[in-house]
Formats: sequence, C-alpha cells, structure tokens
Amino acid sequence: MGACMTLQPVLLAGKWQNSDSRQSFRGEDPTRCEPLADEYPISTRRDCDTALDAATGAMHELRSTSAEKIAQFLEAYAALIDEHAEALCEMAHRETALPIKPRLKDVELPRTTNQLRQAAAAARDGGWSMPTIDTRLNIRSRFAGIGPVLVFGPNNFPFAFNSVAGGDFAAALAAGNPVIAKANTSHPGTTRLFADLAHRASQSTAMPAATVQLIYRTSHEDGERLVSDPRTGATGYTGSRSAGLKLKAAADAAGKPIYLELSSINPVIILPAALRERSEAIADEFTTSCLMGAGQFCTNPGLVLLLAGDESDRFLRAVIERFEKAPVGTLLSCRVGDALAESVTQLTRAGAQTLTGGARGGGSGYSFANTLLRTGGREFLQNPHALQREAFGNASLAVVTDDVEQAAAVIDQLEGALTGCIYSHNGGEDDRLYDRLVLRLRPRVGRLLNDKMPTGVAVSPAMNHGGPYPATGHPGFTAVGIPASLRRFAVLECYDNVREHRLPVILRNQNSTGATWRFIDGVWAQFNVG
Amino acid sequence: MGACMTLQPVLLAGKWQNSDSRQSFRGEDPTRCEPLADEYPISTRRDCDTALDAATGAMHELRSTSAEKIAQFLEAYAALIDEHAEALCEMAHRETALPIKPRLKDVELPRTTNQLRQAAAAARDGGWSMPTIDTRLNIRSRFAGIGPVLVFGPNNFPFAFNSVAGGDFAAALAAGNPVIAKANTSHPGTTRLFADLAHRASQSTAMPAATVQLIYRTSHEDGERLVSDPRTGATGYTGSRSAGLKLKAAADAAGKPIYLELSSINPVIILPAALRERSEAIADEFTTSCLMGAGQFCTNPGLVLLLAGDESDRFLRAVIERFEKAPVGTLLSCRVGDALAESVTQLTRAGAQTLTGGARGGGSGYSFANTLLRTGGREFLQNPHALQREAFGNASLAVVTDDVEQAAAVIDQLEGALTGCIYSHNGGEDDRLYDRLVLRLRPRVGRLLNDKMPTGVAVSPAMNHGGPYPATGHPGFTAVGIPASLRRFAVLECYDNVREHRLPVILRNQNSTGATWRFIDGVWAQFNVG
Repeated sequence: MGACMTLQPVLLAGKWQNSDSRQSFRGEDPTRCEPLADEYPISTRRDCDTALDAATGAMHELRSTSAEKIAQFLEAYAALIDEHAEALCEMAHRETALPIKPRLKDVELPRTTNQLRQAAAAARDGGWSMPTIDTRLNIRSRFAGIGPVLVFGPNNFPFAFNSVAGGDFAAALAAGNPVIAKANTSHPGTTRLFADLAHRASQSTAMPAATVQLIYRTSHEDGERLVSDPRTGATGYTGSRSAGLKLKAAADAAGKPIYLELSSINPVIILPAALRERSEAIADEFTTSCLMGAGQFCTNPGLVLLLAGDESDRFLRAVIERFEKAPVGTLLSCRVGDALAESVTQLTRAGAQTLTGGARGGGSGYSFANTLLRTGGREFLQNPHALQREAFGNASLAVVTDDVEQAAAVIDQLEGALTGCIYSHNGGEDDRLYDRLVLRLRPRVGRLLNDKMPTGVAVSPAMNHGGPYPATGHPGFTAVGIPASLRRFAVLECYDNVREHRLPVILRNQNSTGATWRFIDGVWAQFNVG
Repeated sequence: MGACMTLQPVLLAGKWQNSDSRQSFRGEDPTRCEPLADEYPISTRRDCDTALDAATGAMHELRSTSAEKIAQFLEAYAALIDEHAEALCEMAHRETALPIKPRLKDVELPRTTNQLRQAAAAARDGGWSMPTIDTRLNIRSRFAGIGPVLVFGPNNFPFAFNSVAGGDFAAALAAGNPVIAKANTSHPGTTRLFADLAHRASQSTAMPAATVQLIYRTSHEDGERLVSDPRTGATGYTGSRSAGLKLKAAADAAGKPIYLELSSINPVIILPAALRERSEAIADEFTTSCLMGAGQFCTNPGLVLLLAGDESDRFLRAVIERFEKAPVGTLLSCRVGDALAESVTQLTRAGAQTLTGGARGGGSGYSFANTLLRTGGREFLQNPHALQREAFGNASLAVVTDDVEQAAAVIDQLEGALTGCIYSHNGGEDDRLYDRLVLRLRPRVGRLLNDKMPTGVAVSPAMNHGGPYPATGHPGFTAVGIPASLRRFAVLECYDNVREHRLPVILRNQNSTGATWRFIDGVWAQFNVG
C-alpha cells in the first residue's frame, strides 16, 4: 500500500476522515489498462463499527424527521448532481470507459437525478407506505424505515445504481433510512464525488449527520459482518452471484433482509413467423441490445432461443454480420474481461460453437470481440447448467431447438431470470407456439416482454426489475420502480387503539397532504377519516 | 408402530391413500393425559415427492384457473366447515382440551370460516395483487401465485391457524397456489377432518386434483428437504423457534421464501399514573389476557414492565390475587407442559422470583399453576437473554425497573416481538414517560397497542401479525389480515409491451370486475384504461 497520507478519506459519522485501513486499492483506466492515481482505503472492522454506530444514531433521528425534509434533501442532492454533471461524467468515463455522450451525460445522469426526484416525491406524498386504516376497529398500519441500509453497488452503472446515488440509495433514503454505501471497486472516484455532493446536500438541509456514509471496500469477512450486524436494518446488493450469495447466507443467518440483484441470462425467444415477417429488424434490435455498453447490462440478452429452420439460420447470419461490423466496446475493467473470456471458454467447452468472435481484443483497452455462440436444443438439455453460465459482456448464446417440445424442455431448464422476451408474428401466425411457450417462461422471469429487447429498464411504478432466485433473493420485490422499490427497506408498523395525537402524521384522521392515497376500510381514498 | 392397516391415510395427488411410512404417532387427550386411538403415519421422502410432483401439476392448472373459481372453492369449503362444525369442535376439543364453548364453536370456528370467506372475496376482487398499469410505457404488473405452498400449522389454534384451514392456507389458496399441509402433531384428527372437507369442496368445484394435500408428519430432515425443494414455491410456518429456524436455514440456502411466526414475549408497559387511575381494571385485563386459553397465544403478554413504586406493588398484588383465584386451564399437550415447566425453571434460575404459581398441576390433565414471576430492572439487564425466554402458557414475568432510564435500557434489550403495549393515564399524566419509552419500543414490535392487551388478533386489512426477527423471519409481512397476508405467497409479475389479449384479465384495459382497485399512472382507481 502507499503512504497513508495519500489515501482518500472515508465519509463516516458526518465527516470525511482517515480510514482505519491496513490495505488500499486503486481504480483503473480500462482504456489504457493502467491504474489511476488515487488510492482508496480498504476499511477494517473499526470503520464498519464507526459507520454502524453513527447510522444507528442517524436512524434514531430520522424516525422523527419529517418526510418533507427527507424530500428536500433528495432534491438538493439531485440539484448538486446536475450542477456537477461534468466532473461526474469525466470521472466516471475515466474509471469505466463508458462514453460521456450519450451514455453518461444524456442517459444515465438524468436517470439518476430523475430517480432521486421521484424518490423525493414519493417520500413527500407518503403513499408508498400504504397507509391502511380500519376505522371500525381503530387499527392502522403503514410501512416505515427498517434501519440503516447497506448498499453495495454494481460495476456497470456508475451513476444510476451507484451505491451512494442510485436506485437503492434513493429508495432506502426515501423510506426513511440512513445509508452506508460500499463503493464499487471499479469506480471509487465517481462514488467519492457523489458522496461529497450527498454530504453537502445533507448538511445544507440539516439532515442527521450520518444520514449518508461511505466506505470503499472491506474484506469479505467484514462485508459479511456488516450485513448481519444487529445494528443493520437491511442490505441492497447488486453484483456477482458468488459474492452476493455469501452475503445472503450471512444476512439470512442473522434474520436480516437482504435484496439481491444477481446475474441473469434473460432469454429471448424468437418465433419463426416473426422471423419470416421481420428478421432484419429483429437482428438490428438484438444486436443493439446485446452490444450496447459492451453488453454489460443485467438485462443483456444472453440466450436467444430459436426453432430450427431456414428463418433461424438466416437470422443468425444477419446477426453475425452485424456483430462483425459493429465496433467492439471497451469493458469496464480487467476483471470483467477475464470473466468474459472465462465464460466463453467454459461455454465452448460445454459444447457451444463459436459463430463469431470468441477472442480478446478488437476494441481499445480491455475488450473482447462481439461474440455469438450456438448450440442445439439436445446439446443444451444434456448440459443445461454449464450452458447457461452468464457471459457478462458483449456475447450471447443461440440455442436452436428441433421443435416446440424441445424448446419447451429448454425453457423448463432455465434458471430464474430478470426478464424473458418472446418475439412473435404481428398477424398472429405464431400464436399457438406463443401460448405453449409463454406458460413455461412466465414463472421463470420477473418481466415478460413481447417484441422488445430487455435492455432498458424504465423507472415506472409498473416495472419489475426482479425475478425468481437466483436472479434475485426474493421474487416479490423490485429494485427499480417507485414506489415499490422503497418497500424493500421498510417494516410493517401497526398501531392498535393508539391515541390519535400519538399516531404518525400519515395515519391520523386528516389526510396530511390532502392527496395521499390511503387504504381506508377496504377502499383506496384521499379523504379524511371521521 | 401399529399394524399398517390401522394407519390413517394421507391426502396426496387428489386422493386419500396409504402413506409411505415407517413410523407412526398418535394424538393425545390432554385432559386424560393418554394417547387417542387413531394412528397417523410419519411420511417418508416418497410421500413428500408425490406431494410436490402433484402440487407442481396443480400449480400449472391453477395458473389458468379463474379467480372466481378459486373463490367458489374457498366458499364451498367454508360452508362445509359450518355444516360439520359439531364434529370439528368435538375432535378439536378431544385433541387440545380447548373448550367447545365459547372458544372453539363461537370464536375460533367462525373466525376460520370468516377468513376463508374474506380470502374468497379477495381472490374474486383481485385488488390484493396490486395491479399496476403504466399506460404511457405500456408496462403492467401484479402479484401472482408463487407456486406450491407448504403450510406448517401451530398447536394452539386447531382451527384458525390449522395448516389446511387457517390463515396461511386461505392466503396461499386465494393467491392462486396449491397447498401441501403438514398437520400439527397435537391435532391430527382435526386436521384430517378439515382436509376431508377441503378435498370435497375442491372436488365439487372442480379444482385441480392436488390443490389441497395433507401429510401428518415427516422427519426433520424431510421437512428441511420440503422447504428447499425446487418444486416448492414458499413456506408458511408457525411454531417453535428452534424448529422454525432450522427450516429457515434450509429454505434460505435454496433461495425459497419462508414466512415464520415464532415465539414472542409481547412486552406490556404499564405506566404509574395509569395504575393510579385504574389499577384494578388493568389487573383484570392483564389476568384475562394472560390466562385465556391457558396463555397459549403467540401474543400472550409474557413480560410486564413496571416502574418501582407503590402503584406497581399494589398492581402486582392485585394480579397475584386474580391468578390464584382464576381456574387453571388444561395445556394443549404433555410437551407444552414440559416446556412451560422448563421455562419457568430457567427463568427462576436466571434470578426471577416466583410471586405465585411456579409448579405443575392445579387443573385437569396437563396443567401448570397460573404463574407470575418478578425480577428487577438491574437483574434483567444483567441477564437479558435468559430472562426473556418465552414461557408459552399461563405465566408472565414482571420486570420492575427503578426509573425510566432503566426501563428504557430494558426495552433496548428486548428481542423483536409481535406486539408491544403501553398503558398510560387517560388524562395525559404519563405522556412524558410514554414519549420517552415508545421511541425505543416501536422498532422492536410489529403491532403497538395503547391501553389494550395484545391477545385478540383481528382479521383486519390494517392488522400486522408480524414483527422484527426473531418474532418472524421478515418484518415486512403479516400472517393475519387480508389482503396483505396473500402477498407473502406471491411473486411480482411484470408485463412489458405484452399484447393486450395476452395479458392476465386483471391487467387488461377494462376493469374486469368493474370495481377492482388498480394503481393506474400513479392513481388508485376503478376506471377502465383507454
């Protein structure tokens, strides 16, 4: 490690301070494949303890902080992010190689501030907490903050899922919880900039000192201690399956809720009449979805299921052509490149044939050729586990099945996924096939799409960015979408015969905003009670 | 074990059939302390497999079964229960010693059929599934059945929480899932009668054959296999903490949701001015709540927190007097008696003083004297873990603290509980104490009560029969209350750009019932879309 004096401080208990660390790490520039200058601490247990104690105090204060104030904090933070967009985009570009335009500046940054503002509106309105009133029995309930929330952000969205600015952060805060953010190792500088803005917004709106805290990294052991600590309320984790499942085991054993968004291969089924109708257009959509951001999306279409036939052969040729023509993106990090190479190797070892790509290089910095693999339905069914290994990046596996029975059997072998798509003929020529396959696909995915690729996760109240295990840890929750994502970081609090002036404002007789939807005697309503 | 021919059959795959078992057990008559005649099988793994396979098939059919038909089944079942109330009450009385009147016939049976009918209404209406529509993006979502649900019912509610008739059963069915019920060992005959009625209702309403299945008992190992099996959707378990946590570990490791309702000591805080105001009335309420059903309620007030002073001494004397005068109830089983005796022994070993009771006997059959123990705040804080051991039955521990600081410290040591109550002066004289203590109590309990004992769990949409770990496995869910309890057994299903005729009826443009509440573009509404 470098000299301690050069180490970046951590944000604990309301101030930037030296970390208690014995090791350090640096970000890297994926375009040049070399480390960046800044050095970040790997916190020890003492930092974790400091954070948890301070968050406990902040939670205590937040219980009596008004929703309006929390909303103001989130809005002030969004405004500061807008103000510092340039610095954020430059830093994120340097650390992740994601293009500044359009991706970072025009797409991901506005999405991030939009999420924070939607979360602010949800906090202010309070309807997310599902206030429920039984006037006859005088029993009332609502969701309320669960306690300090640990957020582990992923590598692939340095803004929109950043642990100190993204969806989990916004949801946890809006639900009334302090956040202890653990930076993703591949963009510590971006996370530092965000934390600094969050801290300033928190100070300017007089929020509890430890509302937002940041550490960069811990040992795996300390990570497991964090998620299972008695002071912790819950955890939001987005990242690799192996690390996520270790955290889940630790949290589960302590009875602590943990929400995971792990890997997912997001099957896309393209039916023959759709290909006869619009093969080129679908090949365009598939290529864009698969290669966008060098394929580094949790909803990247990693498996495309086809029925054997001329249409499918033609479609694959069209995709190969596009994959070969398309520029090769830079991967987020050396580690992503290694993992992608390893996955492609394992897939081919399991019998997949390389139609195009399959080797490193082709772009600047860490890169891997745009890769399309192919296997048959029978081969897939002989080795379903190995052949659905996620290849995180610009690669996909086509599974060409002999007939609809085999396609159904393949679907029955699929692990839980975030999304599943079916492309079918617009005039209904695929409808019998659709009806047969959708029954098998529906229970295996969180979001079912028609005629549309899965990348692009709208921040909509109707969104489900979740799905069956092992895509996530619980199939009833979504990581994207407001108000639902807030309820992950909440407990159900019931008030039975509690005197009215002692009730939380949102459960009193008068509708405190005048417009909050409450479930009163079985009816969703905005009226006052009594 | 007895001869195989005398063994009761199990209900698997749509018919009563011989169990694959190598061992058996009998219910017992707690009043006479002797085994009952009927012999029930302890199923082997083969029975479990048969049940899971059949339930998988039933789930497949239930996905395309209308909500109306599920509602009809639940109503037909409720009607059959009413018809056979006498036989059910007699059997349950024989197996549990709970009085036929008023408890079984006038309270628990109507509650059970009421739950089934409320669940039917919820299924028919569909609003429980929170249909959510984003018309601009054409994204729609709703909760839907999770798959076969295992229900492990407790010993203390042979009707209302019966694994094949109670709250979890009703919720799981109404959410569209088949149920595999595991009978509670202490009332197998009651459960058999229910299963027979459920089976008949299922046949008369032409439900899938394996909608309802029943086994009586398995090895612990097979229980763990059941909750973690890939064919399982989720589990609802109500019972002892030790068995529940073993099932939780198995389910968690497999990524299978499991909802637990474990032990809870349900603290009741009685403030001094309330005692000056109405000590005798509170003593009456406390005595009734503590001794009702021989105290065998999950919300039984197991710990009463008082501030040292004359009022508290007087209150305890009043309670002692009532405990000594009150009849001693019969406990549900030999095992409950043993566990209660052991808990009281352990509590006294940990320093609690016996104010009254403390020994076996005093009632007919298995019984234990109405027992009140006492300890000081300082003593409690020295040994908080041992002194909050649950004594399931007619026993409670008074913790008398020196002052409000010590009371707050005691509350800070309390484990998560289902309920917490504070009795305070009606004229506001306790309000400063209340405000101080409620902040500590609120996050430790699911349901906060004022001036009311915790026993009596109303089936209300606003109810929370849940709470922080280890009272339950997740603080965001309730086991009682419709519609919320249904959402435990559901996954979030999203439809993105799915053609309208392919959508579930409840997500189509037209409101299919004309009255279902849906969340449309941020507004709760009953109108049609488009």
